[in-house]
Amino acid sequence: MNMVKKSFPLRKVYGLLEPGPVVLLTTAENKQPNIMTMSWHSMLEFEPPLIGCVISNRNYSFDLLQTTKDCVINIPTVEIAKKVVQCGNSTGATTNKFKKFGLTPIPAKHVSAPLIDECYANLECKVFDSNMVEKYSLFVFKVVKAWINPGANTPRTLHHLGYGRFMIAGETITIRSKMR
Amino acid sequence: MNMVKKSFPLRKVYGLLEPGPVVLLTTAENKQPNIMTMSWHSMLEFEPPLIGCVISNRNYSFDLLQTTKDCVINIPTVEIAKKVVQCGNSTGATTNKFKKFGLTPIPAKHVSAPLIDECYANLECKVFDSNMVEKYSLFVFKVVKAWINPGANTPRTLHHLGYGRFMIAGETITIRSKMR
Repeated sequence: MNMVKKSFPLRKVYGLLEPGPVVLLTTAENKQPNIMTMSWHSMLEFEPPLIGCVISNRNYSFDLLQTTKDCVINIPTVEIAKKVVQCGNSTGATTNKFKKFGLTPIPAKHVSAPLIDECYANLECKVFDSNMVEKYSLFVFKVVKAWINPGANTPRTLHHLGYGRFMIAGETITIRSKMR
Repeated sequence: MNMVKKSFPLRKVYGLLEPGPVVLLTTAENKQPNIMTMSWHSMLEFEPPLIGCVISNRNYSFDLLQTTKDCVINIPTVEIAKKVVQCGNSTGATTNKFKKFGLTPIPAKHVSAPLIDECYANLECKVFDSNMVEKYSLFVFKVVKAWINPGANTPRTLHHLGYGRFMIAGETITIRSKMR
């Protein structure tokens, strides 16, 4: 794949993460990138988009994050489901996951971590608040730039149910609502 | 509906919330119950299950929570999608949402807030940590008891995409994984 990403408005970012997709978090130090599979995240604010993410200090990404203070949240779809699991089952301490699993890093605009080209959406993030890291492994990220693949209207995102079982995004419905 | 709920193991609760369903949060003060629609939540710990939930002080539920320190997180499915939106579009300050939208409260075992019978899963919660409420409107709840409808194998949960548009849980796949 070699998608041409287009810019995505920050005010709409919440709609990408609210439905709870599994995401791939990328980090990089000295141009050595890493990838971590993650499901424990929540929007905390609409705009600028703030996202709370649980990242344990047992993960290699934890140390990279503490050093570089930035990352990219990449949203994969079912087409690369196997790679998503492989990224979750290996450690960046001994594996270059981009090379090993055939994923393509693209330079980000504002952060040191790369985008994953094979993901339909990518959120460049900076660490905004580390105060809850010690107690809950909870980082608060601020999205500084968002990207999306043109034509990604109904992405078949993955939603983890435990032990490698995933729900795949199904049909969409619209119900008249006053809520954002 | 009048489902007979069965007990659900606390260690498995994360699998209900990781996929990111819209939930209905119930609270109650002086036997006056309320319902709030919510999508901003994340697991914070497996067991005992800790859940971070964003609840703005503009919501009527915010005051009830501060008083009673407990709630129930109810997980609805597409069958009651319209009621989910109606709960989100009205306020408990002036509306008894159970009566108005035809939902059935069932007494909980350990908390003052009621379960919603029409939801396939119900998590009785106590406020565990309020330290992040002022800065992020983020409550940390501890699940003290969980219930599920027998036979709820592939619940068609709702996943909000913004402005009343919802993705409905689709098919499931399993990929061999070492991850919990």
